[in-house]
Amino acid sequence: MATKVKPLSGFPEYLPAGRVVEQRVLDILRETFELHGFAGIQTRCVEPLEELARKGEITKEVYVVQRLHAEPGGKDDLGLHFDLTVPFARYVLENAAALQFPFRRYQIQPAWRGERPQQGRYREFWQADIDIVGQGSLASHHDAEVLLVMLEAAERLSAEIGLPRVIARVNNRKLMQGFYTGLGIADPSAVIAAVDKLDKIGEEAVRSMLSADPAQIDSIMALGRIKSMDDGFVGQVRALGVSNELLDQGLEELADLVKAVSARFPGQVLADLSVARGLDYYTGNVFELALEGVPGLGTVSAGGRYDSLASDGRNTYPGVGISFGVTRVLAPVLSKGALQASRPVPSAILVAVDDEATREVADRVATALRARGISCEVSPNAPAYGKQIKFAERRGIPYVWFGGVRGQVKDIRSGQQLDADATAWTPPAEDAKPSLVSGSANWYRDALM
Amino acid sequence: MATKVKPLSGFPEYLPAGRVVEQRVLDILRETFELHGFAGIQTRCVEPLEELARKGEITKEVYVVQRLHAEPGGKDDLGLHFDLTVPFARYVLENAAALQFPFRRYQIQPAWRGERPQQGRYREFWQADIDIVGQGSLASHHDAEVLLVMLEAAERLSAEIGLPRVIARVNNRKLMQGFYTGLGIADPSAVIAAVDKLDKIGEEAVRSMLSADPAQIDSIMALGRIKSMDDGFVGQVRALGVSNELLDQGLEELADLVKAVSARFPGQVLADLSVARGLDYYTGNVFELALEGVPGLGTVSAGGRYDSLASDGRNTYPGVGISFGVTRVLAPVLSKGALQASRPVPSAILVAVDDEATREVADRVATALRARGISCEVSPNAPAYGKQIKFAERRGIPYVWFGGVRGQVKDIRSGQQLDADATAWTPPAEDAKPSLVSGSANWYRDALM
Repeated sequence: MATKVKPLSGFPEYLPAGRVVEQRVLDILRETFELHGFAGIQTRCVEPLEELARKGEITKEVYVVQRLHAEPGGKDDLGLHFDLTVPFARYVLENAAALQFPFRRYQIQPAWRGERPQQGRYREFWQADIDIVGQGSLASHHDAEVLLVMLEAAERLSAEIGLPRVIARVNNRKLMQGFYTGLGIADPSAVIAAVDKLDKIGEEAVRSMLSADPAQIDSIMALGRIKSMDDGFVGQVRALGVSNELLDQGLEELADLVKAVSARFPGQVLADLSVARGLDYYTGNVFELALEGVPGLGTVSAGGRYDSLASDGRNTYPGVGISFGVTRVLAPVLSKGALQASRPVPSAILVAVDDEATREVADRVATALRARGISCEVSPNAPAYGKQIKFAERRGIPYVWFGGVRGQVKDIRSGQQLDADATAWTPPAEDAKPSLVSGSANWYRDALM
Repeated sequence: MATKVKPLSGFPEYLPAGRVVEQRVLDILRETFELHGFAGIQTRCVEPLEELARKGEITKEVYVVQRLHAEPGGKDDLGLHFDLTVPFARYVLENAAALQFPFRRYQIQPAWRGERPQQGRYREFWQADIDIVGQGSLASHHDAEVLLVMLEAAERLSAEIGLPRVIARVNNRKLMQGFYTGLGIADPSAVIAAVDKLDKIGEEAVRSMLSADPAQIDSIMALGRIKSMDDGFVGQVRALGVSNELLDQGLEELADLVKAVSARFPGQVLADLSVARGLDYYTGNVFELALEGVPGLGTVSAGGRYDSLASDGRNTYPGVGISFGVTRVLAPVLSKGALQASRPVPSAILVAVDDEATREVADRVATALRARGISCEVSPNAPAYGKQIKFAERRGIPYVWFGGVRGQVKDIRSGQQLDADATAWTPPAEDAKPSLVSGSANWYRDALM
């Protein structure tokens, strides 16, 4: 049957060479998280719709999931999760009796949002999350810990993949809320929501959203303009003359965070008191990470402290977490081929076939190579050797094997051909797996220009 | 906010120790597929609903995906894919110009079916698929190849996880179709659909479904009873006295398959001429794999040859593939804890904290260990050492580190404590990662009893 082929906007897919890059990124994230003692979990992709719908302003973007002939609006309606934090909070509640707290977990899965597709926004996107959740309480040093782990992962992605360095902008919800309350503002959450739009719509437009007197609005804007690479922001906030207990707490938490993180990653963390984060479950420190020199891409990783996302009546489960937007970072560049795998296949060797009648000889060679962990494939057919070499060349496979287990191996790049024993010969380490090849050192920024 | 917690029937989730087992299984599958030169790809989780709906009898089980306020029945309705073969066929057509054929790919992803949940059936389930697709033509030796690769993966799962051995039952659609046509039956596809139900409803019920004369039905049943561990089935079919060209082709293809596979896995492949496979895209050899001694679990892996699933008008893309039901195999046993990870966390070491004021000393130890790939975590708080050891014990972490980079490490199982340098000390290999621990050698069958 002939199938209509329809790429779907907002649902990115990669060619095999692009998937090699994505898989490498996912492996680096997983390795880093496991080095820090985070346990991997997976949650189902759906949650009850009513649970998803009451987690805030994201509602309109939820994808509903129904059986083909189900009646709509039923009580059992499901939705695809829009992040990994909400399902994780539910998982913690469901399994609290079997988990050890503080529970450290990572989770690498897709999430879905029915957004209008645009640059940097996807309807299906992979996220890599880490969270630490306590039972009843959770020490504040974990705030810095999750941000440090993500910065370490990003550091490896820079070193091994060539991604630009990440810069973290951090703020604190208590600081904002305490400051606005101390100013005499009745609904500080509304101000946080307005300030969240500063980047997008500018100061004038935000001013017009606020119902407060001009002096209050001036103070709100003055707070939002404060930025510092160290704890200098504390004095600048104090100079605005607002006093409030929650503000003090927020200032201390944020100062601790900035000190701990900049000690390990100097120049990569900025206290920026305009950062608000859209999702309303954050209650303390919040983080927003961008790639240095790529402002158009926006936030590639974000998170923060949430003290009351999950509660089962007996216990609360305060947590802190951070999410890395794998698709957000990779989708805009992988399609352009700016970073490629040296070959789109895992095979390091193509085993040539003399004749269909002796295919089993080639199969034995392949078995001997694979027994030692060497990825290979046998030629699908048996034309002249020249054609089989061309076949390997087209896939970027560097070696072709001729003859039996005691045969010859040819490096088709150099043309060098040597006697070799398939039970002993090993390709050089750099040829064992596909390596990553970029057009330039600045391949990421270049691809986005 | 307090969240209602609702496990969803048919959407299995695992505790961290169960996920360690699942992750190990997924890693073994990926490694095996890559050793054989299969390239990993991922496809989006949704396909246009109209594409999914016309792939056969699965229609009623498709999950529809819509934005929350979208109008139902729209042209752009999407559905969650119900297998990985249909999206793969679409991917091949969409990217044909950029792929090298024969294209060998593996794909490990969830799929969804809105089935009534029952033993061994899930609404969300992970599959691990390999397929080889040609452009215009595809040599028949690939039929045996994909089955051999999956049997090799299953062999590793037996050796490393303790899964029972798999037994493959194989048949051929051409053989069936040719035989029924040779018998004089007008609609051989209807007979295949009826024979597919032999296992479930028995011979009597299948007889009553068939509109054919009694002698024809006797022949159909006689064919369905033929089983052989070698190519002996060819003579048995010939003895039924039906002659047809397609039958001859099918007999030859199936005999080649059985010979090639039983040479490498003697006793694990059975020609069983009652095997039909439900999905209607198969056109040649078909495979159905079950775990030996666990008949109640049903088919855990299946696949076959499909010569006309994908076509773009200019070319057809014949393929052959096989899918392993990861969730089908693991979900019934992981919840019972019959196979466990030795610990639910990756950490091999807990670094004790003397005092919150000197937490950075412990952080430095952890950094030194991680620099050499050793997974560890720092104690979340600083109570008496005895409590920190208990904390490690509850998570199954085997070692606790005391003091600075030049400190002491204690094996909390033996109680042995030694001076150690965090820049040099390494845990024994068997402690570096969680190992798998089963209650018995027959843990899988025992858990299903």
